[in-house]
Amino acid sequence: MAGNREFADRLRELSSERNSVLCLGLDPALPRQRDKYVIPCKYVTESDDNEARLKFCRDIIGLAADFCVAVKFNEQYLRGLTADCHKELAYLVRGLGMLSIYDCKLGDIGDTVESAVFHISEWGYDAITVNPLPGNLEWVVKVAHGRDPPLGVLALTLMSNPESERFMKSATVDGVPLYLVVAQDVRRYGADGCVVGATGHVTGLDIRLVREAAGDDKVLLVPGVGTQMGDPEKVFRFGGESVLINVGRDIIYSEDPRRKARKWNDTLNEIRKRIH
Amino acid sequence: MAGNREFADRLRELSSERNSVLCLGLDPALPRQRDKYVIPCKYVTESDDNEARLKFCRDIIGLAADFCVAVKFNEQYLRGLTADCHKELAYLVRGLGMLSIYDCKLGDIGDTVESAVFHISEWGYDAITVNPLPGNLEWVVKVAHGRDPPLGVLALTLMSNPESERFMKSATVDGVPLYLVVAQDVRRYGADGCVVGATGHVTGLDIRLVREAAGDDKVLLVPGVGTQMGDPEKVFRFGGESVLINVGRDIIYSEDPRRKARKWNDTLNEIRKRIH
Repeated sequence: MAGNREFADRLRELSSERNSVLCLGLDPALPRQRDKYVIPCKYVTESDDNEARLKFCRDIIGLAADFCVAVKFNEQYLRGLTADCHKELAYLVRGLGMLSIYDCKLGDIGDTVESAVFHISEWGYDAITVNPLPGNLEWVVKVAHGRDPPLGVLALTLMSNPESERFMKSATVDGVPLYLVVAQDVRRYGADGCVVGATGHVTGLDIRLVREAAGDDKVLLVPGVGTQMGDPEKVFRFGGESVLINVGRDIIYSEDPRRKARKWNDTLNEIRKRIH
Repeated sequence: MAGNREFADRLRELSSERNSVLCLGLDPALPRQRDKYVIPCKYVTESDDNEARLKFCRDIIGLAADFCVAVKFNEQYLRGLTADCHKELAYLVRGLGMLSIYDCKLGDIGDTVESAVFHISEWGYDAITVNPLPGNLEWVVKVAHGRDPPLGVLALTLMSNPESERFMKSATVDGVPLYLVVAQDVRRYGADGCVVGATGHVTGLDIRLVREAAGDDKVLLVPGVGTQMGDPEKVFRFGGESVLINVGRDIIYSEDPRRKARKWNDTLNEIRKRIH
């Protein structure tokens, strides 16, 4: 049972039990939404977008579960899903022994944070991602950890898109780049971890500095591996042990998601063993 | 008809037609969610949270419509609502001759922005709020304005919670405070406006600097008036003409929402006339 233990601890334990640092990234795009990387047609015979996305997610989670330790659901692809659908997804992940992350990039204040956490926690997810711009990580952690069971908090610390460099790295508070102030806040306010990109302008040194500022016990959730060609070696070398690597499209839209998930898990474990 | 004109232009025209700068802020909290400021019990006889929130929003919009120019829906209170419910709300607002803002504080990158905009635009809202931390306002505007009809973009520029001072005002890029860099981006990339608080550390000078950086044609959406005691006089004096004042709780949870909306609109119009 999850109990009241914190997300980072539970993840570390599960990661060791399941021999995996792989997080399955679910971005279920509808076929009318774009040209490629979409849900296969067989799901979309329904006239119901929610049913289509739910079935697709259920199937992929079932296929990949043996090789993953967590599942990240991207809110931007799940918009319009009902509370019941969210509950089904969160409980499916839990039932298979993994942790669930609702990637909603929550960036709000006061009561509004409480409302978001109320809903997402009721749905049963284990953690959320948080946008730190309102500066109130302390409050977000207080509200999220105050739920029963506590909801984990992973703060967007350094994104990998080229434009993020301006506000996250070039912007400084008292001479310290914003991303390191966020990583310090994660430690100071007891958040569960940092979201850090693995491509573009994000260097090995950046990852090391985030790790040092946030502390060894925090999760580094690293998206952008797989289709976006992030470098897992860099992540393990500079990010230390408590790392969670998110692979989305390269698994979920492949011909054989199970085989792909196994392959990614093997690859990540090989690199990890070589480095640590 | 809305046609392809931009949000800021449509708002200016409607504001003059309807003699209102009042934006109705809808934050429908469920009674089990907190102790006060919740949906009245009569709506909650349903076992269905969505039906309860939908009916409440429909009623309040109907009651307040004569005195407002826009309705802002706060995503954190609408979580779990289906696409059909969203469509109903957005079309109701449009049918009553107002504009709708989906306050989702979108802060994402690449394809994920496209996915969010795809859904929210399909629901029929006229504008979204955007968290500028990923630094990609140019891309967000491109994607949102590329929809038919275009989806307006209002960037979170300066929030009023005390903690936001650290990242929005104290953080600087090349010596310029972050909030002014965001306001400059709003002008440079053709976004529709800025979200600016009216309480706490936000001074009249801050509001004037945002207006100067963003340009006179942009909307300043100002939450925090009403229960949060923001000062509308300061906003009109320093924010100029294209201003949209959001009042939420003080209207929606009052005994007589219609009377309250009328009173707020009268009050705001009096102050406006006195100042401009």
